Amino acid sequence: MSKPVCAVLGVGPGNGEAFARRFSEGGHAVALMARRGDVTDPLAAELPDARAYRCDAADAGDIERCFAEIRDEMGKVETLIYNAGSGIWGSVEEVSAEDFETCWRINAHGAFVASQQVIPAMKAAGGGNIVMIGATASRRGGPNSAAFAAGKAAQRSLAESMARHLWSAGIHVSLVIIDGIIDLERTRARMPDKPDDFFMAPADIAETVWQTSRQRRSAWSFEVEARPFGENW
Amino acid sequence: MSKPVCAVLGVGPGNGEAFARRFSEGGHAVALMARRGDVTDPLAAELPDARAYRCDAADAGDIERCFAEIRDEMGKVETLIYNAGSGIWGSVEEVSAEDFETCWRINAHGAFVASQQVIPAMKAAGGGNIVMIGATASRRGGPNSAAFAAGKAAQRSLAESMARHLWSAGIHVSLVIIDGIIDLERTRARMPDKPDDFFMAPADIAETVWQTSRQRRSAWSFEVEARPFGENW
Amino acid sequence: MSKPVCAVLGVGPGNGEAFARRFSEGGHAVALMARRGDVTDPLAAELPDARAYRCDAADAGDIERCFAEIRDEMGKVETLIYNAGSGIWGSVEEVSAEDFETCWRINAHGAFVASQQVIPAMKAAGGGNIVMIGATASRRGGPNSAAFAAGKAAQRSLAESMARHLWSAGIHVSLVIIDGIIDLERTRARMPDKPDDFFMAPADIAETVWQTSRQRRSAWSFEVEARPFGENW
Amino acid sequence: MSKPVCAVLGVGPGNGEAFARRFSEGGHAVALMARRGDVTDPLAAELPDARAYRCDAADAGDIERCFAEIRDEMGKVETLIYNAGSGIWGSVEEVSAEDFETCWRINAHGAFVASQQVIPAMKAAGGGNIVMIGATASRRGGPNSAAFAAGKAAQRSLAESMARHLWSAGIHVSLVIIDGIIDLERTRARMPDKPDDFFMAPADIAETVWQTSRQRRSAWSFEVEARPFGENW
Repeated sequence: MSKPVCAVLGVGPGNGEAFARRFSEGGHAVALMARRGDVTDPLAAELPDARAYRCDAADAGDIERCFAEIRDEMGKVETLIYNAGSGIWGSVEEVSAEDFETCWRINAHGAFVASQQVIPAMKAAGGGNIVMIGATASRRGGPNSAAFAAGKAAQRSLAESMARHLWSAGIHVSLVIIDGIIDLERTRARMPDKPDDFFMAPADIAETVWQTSRQRRSAWSFEVEARPFGENW
Repeated sequence: MSKPVCAVLGVGPGNGEAFARRFSEGGHAVALMARRGDVTDPLAAELPDARAYRCDAADAGDIERCFAEIRDEMGKVETLIYNAGSGIWGSVEEVSAEDFETCWRINAHGAFVASQQVIPAMKAAGGGNIVMIGATASRRGGPNSAAFAAGKAAQRSLAESMARHLWSAGIHVSLVIIDGIIDLERTRARMPDKPDDFFMAPADIAETVWQTSRQRRSAWSFEVEARPFGENW
Repeated sequence: MSKPVCAVLGVGPGNGEAFARRFSEGGHAVALMARRGDVTDPLAAELPDARAYRCDAADAGDIERCFAEIRDEMGKVETLIYNAGSGIWGSVEEVSAEDFETCWRINAHGAFVASQQVIPAMKAAGGGNIVMIGATASRRGGPNSAAFAAGKAAQRSLAESMARHLWSAGIHVSLVIIDGIIDLERTRARMPDKPDDFFMAPADIAETVWQTSRQRRSAWSFEVEARPFGENW
Repeated sequence: MSKPVCAVLGVGPGNGEAFARRFSEGGHAVALMARRGDVTDPLAAELPDARAYRCDAADAGDIERCFAEIRDEMGKVETLIYNAGSGIWGSVEEVSAEDFETCWRINAHGAFVASQQVIPAMKAAGGGNIVMIGATASRRGGPNSAAFAAGKAAQRSLAESMARHLWSAGIHVSLVIIDGIIDLERTRARMPDKPDDFFMAPADIAETVWQTSRQRRSAWSFEVEARPFGENW
């Protein structure tokens, strides 16, 4: 298989699916990684050279196993998009130590484990892309994001450490901060009065991820914001 | 003239010229604004539908006069790229109050005046782009950038204020932080031992500015970094 | 006169007066600098060894003249508190280029000029304090602080540049960010329904400035926040 | 026992011991919490009303058990200083997933669990202090702090979330960023050529922690830097 491989860890309806479509359109064979197959299986059937993998981002062993399969079946990964996320909301008085751990494990620890799986081949190849998908909470701890923001902050710090370490080896590590509400069936249902303009289109976010991963290496971005024009920030 | 107009304030060899070329290639008629004509005049002759304007970013009246001419001759501005800059280096003990003022006037005050010239037509049109070109110093005051960083910090704050105010009107205000040494005859002469990889290609930076200005409005970026992959940051 | 001298530039009712009282209580002879004498004259009569000076922070020559007088009459300055401020509110469409300049001149340029007046004697003495009084707007440009925030951002950048340059000479440059509404007759009148707890007591802010200026030099702070406990941030 | 109780989690030679001494001097009964007793046992014998507790910050159950004992034996905690830390250095290629987890568990998860132990009584009392001890790495991920910085970033985010949630209940949550090398036998041995001035005195840091915890509530600080005057930053 001569297409470059893009692995998307965390493919649900919305961003994950849009990333897969954009990179497929851009000429990649896409590894679609998700806990369940409801989105990934039909998508693998639709996109040329795509494959679906069952993968639980909370389980380091599972991530390792899954990347081994991808290497065997699709070859080395050229772009890793880490889109797994867990957003448990609540203040320090409301969330539990288990919630605090879950948010960190899926947002940060999984990103660490997945990155370690793809870095050696990228170094050998002299290039590659690792894009982590962050959120407003990556930058600050809100009163009701005690668990979620701590996980996202750890992810952001890891991405920054990796960028500083790996850029000079030609590996473009970046962090895309999504600062808005994504247009999904469930967000529309939760906010029925919001106009279309309020929501972020997954395809638009995917375009930003794509463009970031294609930047020429004399002018790379690390932290990239994606925010709807009508957002109050 | 049916092409959209891109006004670049601050066109020297390097970034300004590259911005003009990229937007011309992208279908814009480009207004080339600079204090002197040595770069802008031949460029205006080369690029289709481009025109050169003499403009001193340190002089508010001159900026106003110049934009009035552009409106008359080329029409309303769709994209403003504020690339004027003044980099006087030195610590608080080394720079003068005049240096401090010059850096602010060119980096921040000129950006304010130029923006006020283009905002009304952009609001009327329901859209537009204002891109300010920042630097590492936009984010922090180094020991030897007492004057320069203060001017760049004022520019960054202005850009942020404008973004928060104007995005909802469809005007995409953004700030591109250039965090590296640009590949120019004079920087090469100053650093003869550096490898090619060390320098930032103006065309690559221009590509980032272009992509930022074309982002879809459900996923806009405000602050965009451009940094060479080998930079130690 | 053997007392160390504290110069407060910008003494009105509220913070400036409170700073003067706190440093007087701490054993300083205080130079009270303000455009008018309504607060400074009675205060100079009340506080031991204090003196009032007419000084316009928007006028570089006036600042220089005033510090020359202080040096003659009171001796070298051990602590400079730069409290002059100008808060013109409005978006980029509402404020004028003159407003933009005024905010910068009083918040940033005056701080630069005043600092240059006191640095030489501090360097000769191997120590000293320069405290700049910032605001929420020092850190970010809000939609309605196009002029004010740009001035405060320039001041913050200058303070950081100075800290990086001067700390190693024993001069403790710091920036106190006031992130709340100060308890003044005019703020009470503007917000008659707010509880006492909502407001920041100038004496409490003054205590923070005092403690910062007395930190031991193995553990200095640069940017110090002061925010009321009930503030929503 | 009528003295307010200060619990220091993480008491080794250096900062932890200095915090205990400063709060004891300030009139607190100090609970000295550490994995081993070599520092805490003699210190408990020396400081009036102090007690030593064995506590492993990596073990949530142990933290809970320990605070239950403190409540029984000393009463409710007025000030919690979370000083446990784990600094494993290395890039993403050098540290293991276990290192990544250890850094997070001790720097962030332990802080979460300990905070949950003291918050209810603080809320009932209408006041209290929670001080977390951060590091340069709290703010950014360096190339060689992939694991450490991610743990510290999670801690910082948690502290910020807690501050935003708990300040209005009178609980002063703060984060002290230690940006330098602490003066310890082992750091002196590692850097034998550095002058005295290079190092941070634990007693000076303790003074900053003390002053922060005594700030009046109309002018609280959240993030407090402590940095030696000669540090290059």
